[in-house]
Amino acid sequence: MQKRTVFFVSDQTGVTAETMGHSLLTQFEGAPYQSVSLPFIKTVAQAEEAVSRIDAAARDSALRPIVFATLVDDQVRAHMQRANALFLDFFAAFLGPMEAELGMPSAHASGRAHGMVDLVAYKARINATNFALANDDGSGNRDYAAADVVLVGVSRSGKTPTCLYLALQYSVLAANYPLTEDELDSAELPEVLRPFRAKLFGLTINPERLQQIRHERRPNSRYASPQQVQFELRAALAMFARAGVPYLDTTECSIEEIASRILNRQRIERRVRL
Amino acid sequence: MQKRTVFFVSDQTGVTAETMGHSLLTQFEGAPYQSVSLPFIKTVAQAEEAVSRIDAAARDSALRPIVFATLVDDQVRAHMQRANALFLDFFAAFLGPMEAELGMPSAHASGRAHGMVDLVAYKARINATNFALANDDGSGNRDYAAADVVLVGVSRSGKTPTCLYLALQYSVLAANYPLTEDELDSAELPEVLRPFRAKLFGLTINPERLQQIRHERRPNSRYASPQQVQFELRAALAMFARAGVPYLDTTECSIEEIASRILNRQRIERRVRL
Repeated sequence: MQKRTVFFVSDQTGVTAETMGHSLLTQFEGAPYQSVSLPFIKTVAQAEEAVSRIDAAARDSALRPIVFATLVDDQVRAHMQRANALFLDFFAAFLGPMEAELGMPSAHASGRAHGMVDLVAYKARINATNFALANDDGSGNRDYAAADVVLVGVSRSGKTPTCLYLALQYSVLAANYPLTEDELDSAELPEVLRPFRAKLFGLTINPERLQQIRHERRPNSRYASPQQVQFELRAALAMFARAGVPYLDTTECSIEEIASRILNRQRIERRVRL
Repeated sequence: MQKRTVFFVSDQTGVTAETMGHSLLTQFEGAPYQSVSLPFIKTVAQAEEAVSRIDAAARDSALRPIVFATLVDDQVRAHMQRANALFLDFFAAFLGPMEAELGMPSAHASGRAHGMVDLVAYKARINATNFALANDDGSGNRDYAAADVVLVGVSRSGKTPTCLYLALQYSVLAANYPLTEDELDSAELPEVLRPFRAKLFGLTINPERLQQIRHERRPNSRYASPQQVQFELRAALAMFARAGVPYLDTTECSIEEIASRILNRQRIERRVRL
């Protein structure tokens, strides 16, 4: 089946165009595509080069390319529109209604999103990332007093990637605590966690999936055995129930979804960067 | 100055609505706002609850709220539109032209973006995150043969957050190598890096900024002194030049921008998750 080429064109990093474009494309599952990102298109000359690439893709395929764009400069955008493609510019579509509502013209300045506009926000993000790394698993730090949330769960239930995502995406201070076998045996909340009960959030996962993940890490180990995995997950759930710790089954969840559900449940403010 | 309330409403995590909405809002700097995320709005009942919250915000302020939405269900969206707000739905605006171009109806199914649709993509992302952690700074692993890119730079030049972002956002295998004082003295590319020259990418940063960052970490240390910082940055630049390692000054860059420029320069495919 022939693939369509999808371009993400931006005067900045392309993150917004990619996020938005991929979201839309997920609504068309039967339409295979390959994607090309063309970030940092800030001048008419760069736009013309991008148009050449898009037109070349159009010539090579029976399927016209789709261009998802976030371009704030009217001139650059006008040039891009000459490409032989379905051209969807997110800014062009929404800046008009926003100007009318806000009663002011838009800046028409590129590089504001995902640029380092705000040093305070930037530092919060780096601090959160460092916090997640320092308070990860067995890494020594247990600064739960400073944490916004402390993820609790058995090994490989998704704690670390979730903490890093919460830090990078939302500047949230997320620590994580891996439950040891002794702690799981006792079914009591570990002592170090007790003063922070309101910050705790449990992660659980389907036993077959966890077995598979652990098996890839340590093939044929006790750690990856069905018995061990089932014991750990059951004991963790019992602990969450007993201590009243909210939890989420991560089996069918992306990291975005786990993060979003945690923030929602714990009523943590999303410190989204600009 | 009165702040407007901006809502991000989604039937899924809200990441797309937040990314797009914040990008648009950066074009209106003089308009202060507070943001509220309302993710996982999947039913008419949930939509009605969201409308109540938006209407309450409208009553509390002279400024009408703005709603950035990504809702695929027509009924849910129709209910949301009753809110007293400027309602901008990203899917509503673009699904029509895409349906026409692709010659197929959209799925109208929520939860496709940032859900765990594709287990292969999900694993690639987790593997990349584990790879970044295992190959970070002094953490032992130096699996540069498997890496897509190896970031090189002095301590606190932005290597670690960039590697983690590359992993989480693009499933790119990014390692990083901190230059030691001995290595900087010699100005020779460290031996362990030489076989991987094509994968190397240098990060540099403004000396004042680096001093400040290091000072916050270890106040009044030699590590944070102007002399030390200047020596290290000069020596690193000399090394990059001599070995022909491309590099980027991260001083004015967000993590998104650093990541995007690296992928662009190194021609690394963006394995964007769905």
